Amino acid sequence: MRNLTLLTDLYQLTMMNGYFNKNVHEDIVVFDMFFRKNPCNGGYTIVCGIQQLVDYINNLKFEENDLEYLKNLNLFSDDFLELLRNFKFTGDIFSVEEGSVMFPNEPIIRIKAPLYQAQLIETTLLNIINFQSLIATKASRVCFAAKGDSVLEFGLRRAQGPDAGLYGARAAIIGGCSGTANVLAGQMFDVPVIGTHAHSWVQKFDSEIESFRAYSSVYPQKALLLVDTYNVLNSGIPNAIKVFKELKEQGHEPIGIRLDSGDLEYLSKQAKKMLDEAGFENLSIVASNDLDEYKITHLKNSGAKINSWGVGTKLITSSDCPSLGGVYKLCASDDGNGVVPKIKISEDPEKINNPGYKKIVRIYNKSKKAEADLILLDEENIDTNQPLTIFHPIHTWKKKTFKNYSIKELLKPLFLNGECVHKPKSVMEIRQFTKQELNTLWKQYRRIECPEVYKVDLSSELWNLKTEMIKEKKKDSL
Amino acid sequence: MRNLTLLTDLYQLTMMNGYFNKNVHEDIVVFDMFFRKNPCNGGYTIVCGIQQLVDYINNLKFEENDLEYLKNLNLFSDDFLELLRNFKFTGDIFSVEEGSVMFPNEPIIRIKAPLYQAQLIETTLLNIINFQSLIATKASRVCFAAKGDSVLEFGLRRAQGPDAGLYGARAAIIGGCSGTANVLAGQMFDVPVIGTHAHSWVQKFDSEIESFRAYSSVYPQKALLLVDTYNVLNSGIPNAIKVFKELKEQGHEPIGIRLDSGDLEYLSKQAKKMLDEAGFENLSIVASNDLDEYKITHLKNSGAKINSWGVGTKLITSSDCPSLGGVYKLCASDDGNGVVPKIKISEDPEKINNPGYKKIVRIYNKSKKAEADLILLDEENIDTNQPLTIFHPIHTWKKKTFKNYSIKELLKPLFLNGECVHKPKSVMEIRQFTKQELNTLWKQYRRIECPEVYKVDLSSELWNLKTEMIKEKKKDSL
Repeated sequence: MRNLTLLTDLYQLTMMNGYFNKNVHEDIVVFDMFFRKNPCNGGYTIVCGIQQLVDYINNLKFEENDLEYLKNLNLFSDDFLELLRNFKFTGDIFSVEEGSVMFPNEPIIRIKAPLYQAQLIETTLLNIINFQSLIATKASRVCFAAKGDSVLEFGLRRAQGPDAGLYGARAAIIGGCSGTANVLAGQMFDVPVIGTHAHSWVQKFDSEIESFRAYSSVYPQKALLLVDTYNVLNSGIPNAIKVFKELKEQGHEPIGIRLDSGDLEYLSKQAKKMLDEAGFENLSIVASNDLDEYKITHLKNSGAKINSWGVGTKLITSSDCPSLGGVYKLCASDDGNGVVPKIKISEDPEKINNPGYKKIVRIYNKSKKAEADLILLDEENIDTNQPLTIFHPIHTWKKKTFKNYSIKELLKPLFLNGECVHKPKSVMEIRQFTKQELNTLWKQYRRIECPEVYKVDLSSELWNLKTEMIKEKKKDSL
Repeated sequence: MRNLTLLTDLYQLTMMNGYFNKNVHEDIVVFDMFFRKNPCNGGYTIVCGIQQLVDYINNLKFEENDLEYLKNLNLFSDDFLELLRNFKFTGDIFSVEEGSVMFPNEPIIRIKAPLYQAQLIETTLLNIINFQSLIATKASRVCFAAKGDSVLEFGLRRAQGPDAGLYGARAAIIGGCSGTANVLAGQMFDVPVIGTHAHSWVQKFDSEIESFRAYSSVYPQKALLLVDTYNVLNSGIPNAIKVFKELKEQGHEPIGIRLDSGDLEYLSKQAKKMLDEAGFENLSIVASNDLDEYKITHLKNSGAKINSWGVGTKLITSSDCPSLGGVYKLCASDDGNGVVPKIKISEDPEKINNPGYKKIVRIYNKSKKAEADLILLDEENIDTNQPLTIFHPIHTWKKKTFKNYSIKELLKPLFLNGECVHKPKSVMEIRQFTKQELNTLWKQYRRIECPEVYKVDLSSELWNLKTEMIKEKKKDSL
């Protein structure tokens, strides 16, 4: 396990040293991690990377050479470096379950810890959760567009470094992909790996048909042939059909073909016709080449005969939206005299955070569809025997009342007093959970373009607290 | 050093096993790595990540648990797994010097190795070089827009995983950034780290001015204050000025302020006026908040009073173009009877590669400006005492003749017969080399939008070889 303790912004350490100097470093603070917008203008976000966050926290330790490096920066007191030498995370971390479907402004992770500890972990917590949540969400969009066809993750060569390839593959599987080409991801996360051959295989042999024969002789049960090295319709598919017939005579079922360039709609339709005429009616036609949820939707709508999708660059980088802007904001502080809610005011109303120590409740209708989420102060309770009325936090006249409903609290402990209480789940289990989560969403929230906005409201108590605090702060600054 | 041996696409391993089965795995092949388009529609690409490529090759080793994992996939013969157990890279790798400015279709890395070895390394080689080259190029664009102001890399929290933060910071420094907030990058690559405090610091104290005083008392020589937590003009800057005056009375020079939201043009102009009036005329005004080369250009053009730029998300992800499409193509093969050039035909003419074992020469005018690059077969020579005429590879009537010129061969050995001959350079040395490289470019190639296209031509011999091979292949496939 890698030690990422120094993977943080320098200002975290300068602030930690400053708090230590002012002797407030042990003050207990509460930070929320949340995001303000779903990726790709979508309707939801799948939270992913929780296991790596847990690993990161468990492995926090300043080694001798780290302390020496910090000392040489001439920014930190010796006493502070001693504090780091004995650093151990002692706080609480709550998060939603990995694979959960979440929405803007919800505290998906809540940290309550001594100030200097909470500060250290901000940057890497965001790095891990932002990226994996982005890719899991993107993958779920691509899978939604593919309407049940298998989607394969092919992006390692274009991923933003080795970790992006690895953890991106993990997140893609959680988001719904059936497998990845990334062998190390397969080994590390126990997920299916897939792949056959490249153009270079075809080029290496004296002719295309020779290369197909060679491949099929080594993998007679896995004959999925790439048919676009020279010419798809005049060479690739006729040669593939010849080899499939030979395989069949030997008692093997061929798998299919892959198209990696050209007009995928036209070529797949022609390919399907040629394969059907040759008696191969049930083969896979895999397509790849810069695919994403938008291109797949177009190809599906135009009747392309593709039933498996290899998705690379545009999935592993979430190319039209390559970051999730998750933030980590101070929302409460306790200097020994009780918890005081905190707020950051901004000219941009969307940048004003929700103060206080909060929780999230999801409201389900009787058929277990998610209807809305409600953010409450931690001490609040909902009596589900009573009707529940919620209101829009800005357009407060927009109200909704639930009568026959159930609720679920979404934040669960990962660490309590520094002790890890998280139970690891396999990636394939998390994938299954995500599938269930997505099934609780009405289709309008999953729409790839212009989805309906899911309701995330504040309890009256929280809304009042926030409104009062804004008034107070605005008074101060005038 | 991490062992990334299994970080590869499954099809590399299935092809390797297939080649082994056909007993052609030891055939010597040549692969070129090149890209077809510069990032962000720009005029050039900075090649970056060579040191990590060298580390990767030096650390290749299949461990027992790797072999066991592969065995359990039921795809590979036992003899092949034995071959992997003793795997060692024994080929030649040439590349351009790290930090070089390069152009589309040039073989920036050339691999000559036994087929199965060359195949294994494709994916991770591309992963490393694509990402770091992308970010180095993006950083150089941002720095170009900043016209000599310092640019600081702030992106870790939005980077695509830990490696993207780390190696992205490395690449950003090579591309021209003055420092990074990423502490681990500072430690690993011996580059400057920078950073002061966040909004949460201001929120933690009972008032903004208290927080500024606290910060300045801990770091009296580093007082750079974030002024937008509550209200920039009514609170942040007046409070900062008060504290700067107090600092001055104590004999310290304040550093400046940082703006992280709002209308940066307006706020920076007002801030400058207020600071000037208070007698602080030479302070830094640092801006951050979703900056990139386009926004910086606009702010510069509108006279914003910003002299230092903190650039995060849009640099570390290269958000408008989050991948460099580097590819790795078979261009020659030697099955024991001499080198045979190889080509891949595509309906898309841009996807047809340049065949043969090649080199690149850069042509400089007498004032050492780069005028054009020429791709030649390795055995060709240029007599610089003679005029040199080059021609456009598609519009062949476009010609240019050089008389008073010098040339430089760009490919240098990293590995010869598997032995590493690469001499590591520090990141700051590479950064300096990149600066020199960029100085050899005419400004029109650096323009941020619509740059002029730099000439990359083929020698007559290479052009003839390619043309003949295309004719031959097209004949085959009809």
